[in-house]
Amino acid sequence: MTQFIPKDTHYKEKVRDSFSRQGVMNTIGVSVVSIEPGEVELEFSHSAALTQQHGFIHAGIVTTVMDSACGYAAYTLMPENASVLTIEFKTNLLAPAQGSKFFAVGKVKKPGRTISVCEGELFSLTEGEKKLVATMTCTLMCIQNREGITG
Amino acid sequence: MTQFIPKDTHYKEKVRDSFSRQGVMNTIGVSVVSIEPGEVELEFSHSAALTQQHGFIHAGIVTTVMDSACGYAAYTLMPENASVLTIEFKTNLLAPAQGSKFFAVGKVKKPGRTISVCEGELFSLTEGEKKLVATMTCTLMCIQNREGITG
Amino acid sequence: MTQFIPKDTHYKEKVRDSFSRQGVMNTIGVSVVSIEPGEVELEFSHSAALTQQHGFIHAGIVTTVMDSACGYAAYTLMPENASVLTIEFKTNLLAPAQGSKFFAVGKVKKPGRTISVCEGELFSLTEGEKKLVATMTCTLMCIQNREGITG
Amino acid sequence: MTQFIPKDTHYKEKVRDSFSRQGVMNTIGVSVVSIEPGEVELEFSHSAALTQQHGFIHAGIVTTVMDSACGYAAYTLMPENASVLTIEFKTNLLAPAQGSKFFAVGKVKKPGRTISVCEGELFSLTEGEKKLVATMTCTLMCIQNREGITG
Repeated sequence: MTQFIPKDTHYKEKVRDSFSRQGVMNTIGVSVVSIEPGEVELEFSHSAALTQQHGFIHAGIVTTVMDSACGYAAYTLMPENASVLTIEFKTNLLAPAQGSKFFAVGKVKKPGRTISVCEGELFSLTEGEKKLVATMTCTLMCIQNREGITG
Repeated sequence: MTQFIPKDTHYKEKVRDSFSRQGVMNTIGVSVVSIEPGEVELEFSHSAALTQQHGFIHAGIVTTVMDSACGYAAYTLMPENASVLTIEFKTNLLAPAQGSKFFAVGKVKKPGRTISVCEGELFSLTEGEKKLVATMTCTLMCIQNREGITG
Repeated sequence: MTQFIPKDTHYKEKVRDSFSRQGVMNTIGVSVVSIEPGEVELEFSHSAALTQQHGFIHAGIVTTVMDSACGYAAYTLMPENASVLTIEFKTNLLAPAQGSKFFAVGKVKKPGRTISVCEGELFSLTEGEKKLVATMTCTLMCIQNREGITG
Repeated sequence: MTQFIPKDTHYKEKVRDSFSRQGVMNTIGVSVVSIEPGEVELEFSHSAALTQQHGFIHAGIVTTVMDSACGYAAYTLMPENASVLTIEFKTNLLAPAQGSKFFAVGKVKKPGRTISVCEGELFSLTEGEKKLVATMTCTLMCIQNREGITG
């Protein structure tokens, strides 16, 4: 596996700082599991406030957490004073998002000066069994020196 | 424009019923603007509880509302006793999701017995000006006679 | 419909010049139908050399022609001396690509200084009937001043 | 790694048979490297007949070969008398497709009775160095008993 070297040694702090400013992470109840160079893991628990009509977690919420995991994975490798912006993503739903807990893992597939590509996976945990629920491919842009956009 | 003929004359009621069971729609504060054969429009307002780190609506929330609009657009054309399931979607973010109100429009591009393809658009409203913020392509499946899955 | 104003008045010539350098367009037998600001149409004919196992045009060939149509649609709006590069695309296959002739239309959905988003459609023509076969969303990048990359 | 058990013991023969009927594989000059349960590898060489305007292999051709690799990966796990149809795919271009040879690997991420999801990767080979050029996520459908559609 490729070992990424972060350009900014404060990559953990800047991810935590940006994460804490994402109001929606608090609404969904997401917490940070780990922040490594090019890889971020997040987790959240089942809640009726996040469901679609069959009682599963809504595909858009699954996507929200995978997008943040992917975005922060890319962000760990970006230089100081840069910001990360999602250009586009694609989500495939492989199984119903049911379970007590959910884990989203975002990994950098290809880092780039301007464009980075990440892959996300969302796993459910039900009675100790981990299952792959969804996958994401996410294209992100590194923004530098744009007024009003930081983190 | 293609004029779709719904197979189930109760298509409006079944969409409203299913929508009311999506817990996340209540959490985001989404309401139904219109339900027509092959086309559904939803709306919601800005809230700090839905934001990413720059104060814009998180791309995943934008996606959540577009996915429901697309899913219900497809659902209007499905037979009685069918359920709709999202297989996959792709979102492109065209502009920051800032504004006071947001409108998601889902339209059926190609209806199918098993697979339907929809297109979604999300618009922001700021001081009377409507702006295209994001687009979605969404692939959905019509499920019939699967135990425990209705609506 | 948005009326785009090209930055480079020689947009038609530069598209034709770049198109003529795409070896694969000659292999597939594609010709240019029209080049307008933000919109390009291409066409090609059925050939057994382009088929998948059921005798339809292979989804990847359908994609190749839509990608060129989208790329050149974006290129019409780019400044002089810029190059266009595809970052990613997504294709949905709506119907088998059968027929005598095929038309690919690429349209700019959102032009941008760095990132442009286009939408493509591929139509088949069979005994005078036009049918939508596939759709594409395509994200493109404008490259300026990169050595060895022109057109 | 998940070990897939093919339902049809003749999975290699049926992939080879279907592959031989894809006219476009011959046009591109693709040959089969390996066929394993849930995984297929294909290869082809650089040719000026496959290029875009900068002399790299066109993104659509890269996609064509990845799509066939993914489709046949899914096909290895399908029952006898089934056919495989691509519903949609998304390609990310990570690096210019330059080199002397190219390898496309398609792997089943999630097999399904009706819907399968595969992931594809395309590598270039230049002077002995292998490089990741593109990735694909591909959604496929298993078709049974549809007249005129076999393989």
